[in-house]
Formats: sequence, structure tokens, C-alpha cells
Amino acid sequence: MTRLYNNPDDFTHEMIDGFVAASSRWVRRVPGGVARATRGSEPSVAVVIGGGSGHYPAFGGLVGPGLAHGAAMGNLFASPSAQQVVGVAHAAHEGRGVLLTYGNYAGDVLHFGRAQELLREAGIDCRTVLVTDDVWSAPPERVEERRGIAGDLVVFKIAAAAAEEGRDLDTVEALARRANAQTRSFGVAFGGCTMPGSDEPLFDVPAGRMAVGLGIHGEPGIDEVEVPTAEGLAQMFVAKLLEEIPEGLQVDGARVVPLLNGLGSVKYEELYVVYRSIARLLGEAGIVAVSPQVGEFCTSFDMPGASLTLLWLDDELERLWHAPCDTPAFRQGAMPPRASVVDDEDHAVEDDVPDASDASRRAASAVCRALEVAAARLSEAADELGRLDRVAGDGDHGIGMQRGSRAAAAAAQDARSRGAGAGTTLLRAGDAWSDGGGGTSGAIWGEMLRAFGASVGDERPLEAEALAVGMIAVRDAVMSFGKARPGDKTMIDAIVPFADTLTARLRDADPCRTAWLAAVDAADAGAASTAHMTARLGRAKTHGDKSLGTPDPGAISFAMVAASITPTIEEND
Amino acid sequence: MTRLYNNPDDFTHEMIDGFVAASSRWVRRVPGGVARATRGSEPSVAVVIGGGSGHYPAFGGLVGPGLAHGAAMGNLFASPSAQQVVGVAHAAHEGRGVLLTYGNYAGDVLHFGRAQELLREAGIDCRTVLVTDDVWSAPPERVEERRGIAGDLVVFKIAAAAAEEGRDLDTVEALARRANAQTRSFGVAFGGCTMPGSDEPLFDVPAGRMAVGLGIHGEPGIDEVEVPTAEGLAQMFVAKLLEEIPEGLQVDGARVVPLLNGLGSVKYEELYVVYRSIARLLGEAGIVAVSPQVGEFCTSFDMPGASLTLLWLDDELERLWHAPCDTPAFRQGAMPPRASVVDDEDHAVEDDVPDASDASRRAASAVCRALEVAAARLSEAADELGRLDRVAGDGDHGIGMQRGSRAAAAAAQDARSRGAGAGTTLLRAGDAWSDGGGGTSGAIWGEMLRAFGASVGDERPLEAEALAVGMIAVRDAVMSFGKARPGDKTMIDAIVPFADTLTARLRDADPCRTAWLAAVDAADAGAASTAHMTARLGRAKTHGDKSLGTPDPGAISFAMVAASITPTIEEND
Repeated sequence: MTRLYNNPDDFTHEMIDGFVAASSRWVRRVPGGVARATRGSEPSVAVVIGGGSGHYPAFGGLVGPGLAHGAAMGNLFASPSAQQVVGVAHAAHEGRGVLLTYGNYAGDVLHFGRAQELLREAGIDCRTVLVTDDVWSAPPERVEERRGIAGDLVVFKIAAAAAEEGRDLDTVEALARRANAQTRSFGVAFGGCTMPGSDEPLFDVPAGRMAVGLGIHGEPGIDEVEVPTAEGLAQMFVAKLLEEIPEGLQVDGARVVPLLNGLGSVKYEELYVVYRSIARLLGEAGIVAVSPQVGEFCTSFDMPGASLTLLWLDDELERLWHAPCDTPAFRQGAMPPRASVVDDEDHAVEDDVPDASDASRRAASAVCRALEVAAARLSEAADELGRLDRVAGDGDHGIGMQRGSRAAAAAAQDARSRGAGAGTTLLRAGDAWSDGGGGTSGAIWGEMLRAFGASVGDERPLEAEALAVGMIAVRDAVMSFGKARPGDKTMIDAIVPFADTLTARLRDADPCRTAWLAAVDAADAGAASTAHMTARLGRAKTHGDKSLGTPDPGAISFAMVAASITPTIEEND
Repeated sequence: MTRLYNNPDDFTHEMIDGFVAASSRWVRRVPGGVARATRGSEPSVAVVIGGGSGHYPAFGGLVGPGLAHGAAMGNLFASPSAQQVVGVAHAAHEGRGVLLTYGNYAGDVLHFGRAQELLREAGIDCRTVLVTDDVWSAPPERVEERRGIAGDLVVFKIAAAAAEEGRDLDTVEALARRANAQTRSFGVAFGGCTMPGSDEPLFDVPAGRMAVGLGIHGEPGIDEVEVPTAEGLAQMFVAKLLEEIPEGLQVDGARVVPLLNGLGSVKYEELYVVYRSIARLLGEAGIVAVSPQVGEFCTSFDMPGASLTLLWLDDELERLWHAPCDTPAFRQGAMPPRASVVDDEDHAVEDDVPDASDASRRAASAVCRALEVAAARLSEAADELGRLDRVAGDGDHGIGMQRGSRAAAAAAQDARSRGAGAGTTLLRAGDAWSDGGGGTSGAIWGEMLRAFGASVGDERPLEAEALAVGMIAVRDAVMSFGKARPGDKTMIDAIVPFADTLTARLRDADPCRTAWLAAVDAADAGAASTAHMTARLGRAKTHGDKSLGTPDPGAISFAMVAASITPTIEEND
């Protein structure tokens, strides 16, 4: 469990402060995360990585010469927001384009995807390579759905070494893609980890048992077996990974980098006992182990678990793997000293609010009240939502919604106090929600508030028609952003009936409050209809009957917010 | 807890196999541990480190260019034997002398001390610098009694950097001593770790509590408090370490290397949150933090705990600290590639046994029987002895005695089967006991068997007079080796009355068996008299009333062995 913290809400920020204080030789703090503190003699393609925090050395610990140029550092186990990624990418960019590369998780894909759009809009050539090394998370024919785990490091290293050689963005992207295609991982865990300030672990594994194929945030494994011997685990790892040889390669005579990763409290001595068997088994298969890595490369706080990654080499990948690098947590070879970056850019946040009508300023006050009420309700329900999410997801929905809504309420209050109208207040609140909440839900709530804000603007009052048009904008934004459809058993199943009901009732000239109450009923029914999703997807095998009948937490929390703010909706007739 | 192992007895050997397989770029296996796999262009003083296993990266992970030349790797939490240290030192020696440097623990001091004698006898100039950084383990006026914890790395690094610069042994020794004098550490723990194959942790800390000043093997702390916040822990660390400024230094303007060490399952994110406060507190005191180190440098399996070390710099220490190094677990700066060592030395173990009389060969059989019986009794009692040792020590006495006696019985059987007399059989058994058992008790039992063997020789039969003379030799060897006196509440208090009674009775012409039984009674009484030791020394404050009335485990196990082998002692009258 996590024992050392101050206010749990401040954990990530304080962690980054301490990390930067200890690592200033390698990194400097930039908006959204860290970037290299030094610059090479020639500009290169910038390799920007990132993800949720709690996986040290992933991701900040992998920034430095020969490895990443910058890392967007999200909240604990939650994706960084698009704004964070953009902030880091701007700081890291050297004029030759940006490669975004990160593990394949829904939240990260949403935020980094949005960031890529924003960077392209700003004229920066930007590409994405997702890391999909976890063989257990989807079958070989759906390899693009696989999660990224400790293979992250391998893909980052190859991409960064290519950038370091001065290759162009096309080449860096192609090599990163090849590294990912030739990288496979397999993980197990003996128990969960406990987040700062929480009493319960994110998940449990019964004593003496081992969850097989479990994700690094505690995403459900696909099987549960007795804890094997060290030799037994090595056999399981190697046998599974040798089932899938990258195209065009032969096992006999192959050269691979084995990376045996401890997730937190499976320690070095145990890893070496396991590695002893892995080395023998690879040798028996005719494989040459090149530059073996045994240690902690992608952790999950103090989760007791381990994973094996194999990078299948060709001559070019082998040269790039061996290239020197120097970061806070991963160093190899001789990397000559470099000049420090003089940080002369102005990172001050835009502070002005646009002009607004008095009516819109009054509406901004109503927005603030609604956000305060929603934040209070979500704080109260955080544990309950977390438990719900633990059935099928990684258990962070409650804390993510709590953080996001609090941040949104504070940002709205701040904007309103400086005279903002409803549109700007909603836009600022949306940015803050996605920044503060992180994860998929943070991204979607950020998009919803921003879409509503853009639709409402800073002039018109927030009357029935504005509410109706705004809700349509929200619904469309979420469907285009999240790419889910009604019936997929996601929060869409609550949002769409809510928006449709509200709009229809308002256009029928129902009073706002009456229309709202009807829409809340529709959202509730929609949320209830998402139950059984996890059983249908078959993703919660190790969690027993808890998964049956459990509705989607995002749908539930949407309905919960909608209901909670009913008292702030004015009657107008 | 430790989950991944095969046969727990094989853990250390298998761990070293895996470590060497993964780390062949840096280390090669040599008798007793590992030595560098590469050699510099000029010979240098060899810095040889070591200690028990279970503390990775200490000690094998710190071997490589710019750091240690070799590491003697003992069993789990048990000192390597003198033979192991000698083996590593021979492999590491480059003709310019050897510096032995290691943490100050009784077992290590015995074995490394004996190794120093043996190396000097072999004509190698050999010096020792003990690391004594743990401020809680003894007051400032008895600094030489302090334990070594994470300060190990600091002292090793300075000594090795000086050796790398080509300094002579006098200078390397003096700099290591200065580094130790300017290094202070302070550790805490939230719980214990569980050894491979064991069900119980070595010690417990109640939930929500923190043991203050606890040693890295679970040696009792001096206080127990509630788990503080990260800020609170940083304040505690810094305040305590600033109480003792090395002579001649001023706090204001001082330059220090802070090393914040996780003991196993307090993870990087938590350490960075704590480091954030440490950086601020050092700054407020006017101290400049140089090259901060945050990570795992000296662990205790997955023990949840942390320590802070401060190295107070002067210009020379700062230059040496910054020198490059390249090891499996600690790398900094640019270390140019080096040539590999071609390992052409013959490490085969001497396999001949000297000639022996038939009478002595018969006596060797009696020795084998006695050792088998003793080993069986100690296996049976291992848990009980472990529990006893956990009150005041690190809980490894039971497992150490079990391993040592088994190894001794096997070595004796092997020697006897090849025609050895009693003397050689006892000498080989002694070597095996200290090698296989490790720790203080392994060293002492090794010495006892060797002293007895040297006294008995391979000619004379093992009759009453030989037994009497042999026991005097055993008694004297133990007293000279262990430096304890009767009444110090150690195993001496059982051995001395046993030897004196046995000798007196035999010289009074009592039959062997009668004399032996009387000696066993004397040993029992002596062992009982060692109770209350821990209370008297005040070392077991956190362990409550368990410490009162607990006898010395070494004295108890000696009396136990003596009693168990009674049936193998022949009646001769």
C-alpha cells in the first residue's frame, strides 16, 4: 500500500515537484509534465511519451538524451489531458515534428488523439505510434486492441535512438511501429496496489493465487492459477511469448532483448531467480538473449507482479537498442555531456476573459452553482463509483470524477469572478475537468463542457433554446469524441436519451425544470440499461459474480450529476 | 513477501546464477561471488565489498568500472564466509592491494576479518574500512559500533573512484574512511519482509505505525510512532541528520549528496513526494543538494521502509562522487568501454585428502555420525531458534544453523568417503559450515570445527585425552575469534563451562560419556544464564516483554547440539 503522502489530492503534483527537484540534470518542468533539460547540437524529431502517474520510471523517468524528449504526466493511473500533452509537445519540439508514443488505453487514446489534432492545427507535423505489447489483452487477430505495458520502454527507446541519429519523422515513426510489431509482453500479479489515501486495494488476488494477463492498472486478468515456482513462471512466460513470433522471423538463431519487469514489490532477487530459468529456456529454443534487462521499468506502485517482454531484433533495431542514453531511471553506454536548455519561453497561462453580456454573466453564476452541486455529489459518491469501476475497469472512475468536478467548479468560479460569461466559464471548466480528472471520463466531461460553452457563448442568456441547442452540441461532441454508439453499454446510453428528451421537451415548450426532470428519468433508465456489459465482454472472469448486472460507471455518474443539479435549474414558464 | 522461488535452500545460488546471466557485461562469477568482467588499462587497488544477499543492488549490483571490483555474496541476510571473501579478493586483485569495505555487522566483521588475515598471509596488502552510517544504532560517542546501511554505496563509490584514478592503497583507504566519517543515515520501516519459503515475516510493525531506526535486516528499532505524512517523515529525517554535522563543517553553505533509499515496497512516487520536502528543508538550512539520488540502493527484499543518507562533501569527495561508473544497478556519466577479462585462472577446488591412520578414519566416522545427528536436531529446531533470535537479532540464527550444519555433515561425509582422517574431516566440515551457514554463528562454528580438527589431526585416535585437548583448542579459538568474554551473555557462556567441565572430568578419568553428560549440564546452565541480555542492552524496546528473559540463541543452540550428540559419544572406561 501507499503510505507516504500529504493530502492525497496533491500527490501527483508533489511527486512531480520532488522528481524534478531530484532530476534537474535531466528534466525541466513544463506545462503538463517534463521535457529534457538539455539540447543536442542538432535539432531532432521530438519523441513525446506519457500516461498516468504511478508507473515510475514510466514516464518522467525516461526523459533525457537518447530517450524521450518529454513526458506528459497525468494524475495517478489517469491519462494526461490533451492540454498537458500539447504543453509538453510544444516544449519538446525542435522544429522537426513530434512523435507521440504511449500505451494503448482508451483515456490516453482520447487525450493524445485530441492533442495530435491541436498540434497539427498549430502547424506541427505530429504522428502517433501506440504501444500494444500485452499478448493477453486481445488475440493476435485484434493486435491493435492490445494494451501497452512494459514494452513501452522498448518502443520509446528505439524511436528516440532513431531521432537521436537525426532521422526524419517518417523514419522515426516507421521504426517505432516496427519496434512495437516486434515486441510482446506477458504479465502476472499476486495482488493489487492501494492508491494514496485509499483504504482498499484496487483489486484483490486471493492468497497463494496469481492473476494471469492482468493489466498494469489492475484491469482484470484472463485467468487465475496457483502461484507457480520461479521455474514454473519462467516456463509460462516463455511458452506464451514463443507462441507468437513476429512475421518473417525464425525462433532458432533469433536475437531478442528480454526485459523482466517487476511491478513494484516482486523484488530483484526473485526476478533474478526467474531470469535464470528464462535465460536457460531461451537458450534451449535457440534464441540469443541480447542485453538482458532485469529490474523495474514500468511499475504499478507496489503491486506484487512481474512481466516478461521480448523485443525481437533485426540489425537496425539492435543498433538502436544499444545506442547510449542517459535519463533519471534508464542509462546505458557513454552519453557525452550536453548544453542545458535555457528556458526563456513564457509559460504563463492566458489570464484574460473575453467580454460578456450581463445576461451571460448571470448565467455564469448559475453554471458555477450547478458545478458546485455536482462536485459535492461526486465527492460523496466517489467510493461507490470506484467500487463500481473496479468490476470491469481500473477503479479510478470515482476519484477521477471527484477531482475533475472539483477542478471544474474552481475554474468556473475563478472565471466568473473575473467577469466571464457562461460560454467562457464553461470552456474554462471543461479544460480544468479534463486536466484535473484525467482518464477517459475526464476527457469526455471536458469535451461536454467545452461543447456546451462553445454553443452558448458569452452573449445570449441561458434560456430554454440555448439549453436545447447546447445539449445537442454536447451529445454530438461526445459521440464523435468517444466513438461509441448507443447500445454499446457506455455513458452514451445515458447521455443520448438525456439530451434527446431534454431537447424534445423544451421544444414542446415545457418549463425548463419539468423538461429537466423528464430528461433525468431518461438518463437513469439509460444508465440502468448498461448493466451486464462486463459479462457480455467476458472481461471480468477473475472477479466472479460481481461483474454480472453491474452498469457502466460513466453512465451512472452522468445520471447522478444530472439528477444532482436539478435544484439549480430554473423554472421558466 | 517473497513469492517467486524454487527450493528455498537454493534461492541464493539461483539468484546469483540469474544475476550473472543477466549482467555478464559487467560481472563474472568467481568463487564466493562476482568480480568485474572488464579490466582497465592500468592495474588499480581492488575495492572488494560484500555482505548477505537480499539487499540488491547491494552488493553484486554495484560491481563494475568506477565502482567495486568484486562482491562477496553471502546467503540471505547472512555474511559471506571468509573463504568467499578470499575467493573474490583473489579474483579482483590487480597487484596493488585490496580494500575490504562493508557494513558493520558482527558476522561480516568476523568473516571479512578472517579473510583479511588470510589475504595478508598470502602476501596481499589488505585493509578494511567499515561503513557505520546508521545514526540510530549507537550514540555519537560510540560511532564505531554503528551499523552500515545505505551509506554503503557512498563509501564504496568514493573508494572505488579513488582507485580508478590510480591512487595507492593508503590513499584509497584514507578516502574511504573520510567518506564514512562524513556520511550519516537514518531509516524507518512500516513492516517486515518474509524470506523465501517462510510463512512469517522477520518482524512485524503494527498497522499504521512506523519503526524508527530499524536496521536493514529487521534489527529492532529504537522507537515506534504513528506513520507520519511525507512532510513529517522528511522533517524527522532532516532534523535528526542535522544534529550531527561532521567535524570541521558548517551547515550553512555546506554541499551534500542526499540519497533517499527505498527498502523495497515504498515506491518511487512516494519517495519523490518525501524528497520534495527534503529538498526544501535542506535549502532552508542553507545546504546545497548535489546530485540527489532517489531510488533503491540498499533494499531488504520488499520491506516497506525508507532511509535518508547525507554525504557531506569537500572538494575531493565531490570530484570522486561525480566520477563516472557503470555497474548493473548504478551508472553515471560516460564510462568508456573496456576490454573483457579473460578468465584463465583455475578455480577448481582442492580435492585430495591427506593420508590418515585407520584409527583416525574410524574417528572420522564418529565425527560424521555426530554431525548428522546435530544437523537433524538443528533442522527440527530451526523455527524455534529463529523466533528466539528475532527478539534481539535479525531472526536468521535458526536457518543459518540449519544450513551450516547440513553443509558440514555433507562435507564431512564426502571427506570420510575419500579416506580422510578425523582432523581433515573436521577441517572440511568447518569450512563448509562457515560457507553454508554464513553469519556470526557460521563463522564461529566453522572456527570451532577447524580448531578441533587441527588439534586432533589425522593420526591419533579420538580418545579421552584428544577430546580434552581438542575442547580446550575450541574454547580458546572461539574466545580469540569472537572477542567476547564469559559473562557477556553470548554463546561463550555455554561453551566455556562445557569445555572446562568436559576437560576436568576427562582428566579425572571419568568415562567419556559420563564426562560429556556433565558438560552438557554445564552448557545448559550457562545458556540459561544468558537470559535478560537484550533487556540489559536496551535494544528491544519495540518488542515489548518478549525480550525479557530471552536467552542468547547461539548459547541455546550450542547446548542443543551438545545434548543431541550425546548418544554418539562412546563410553570408554
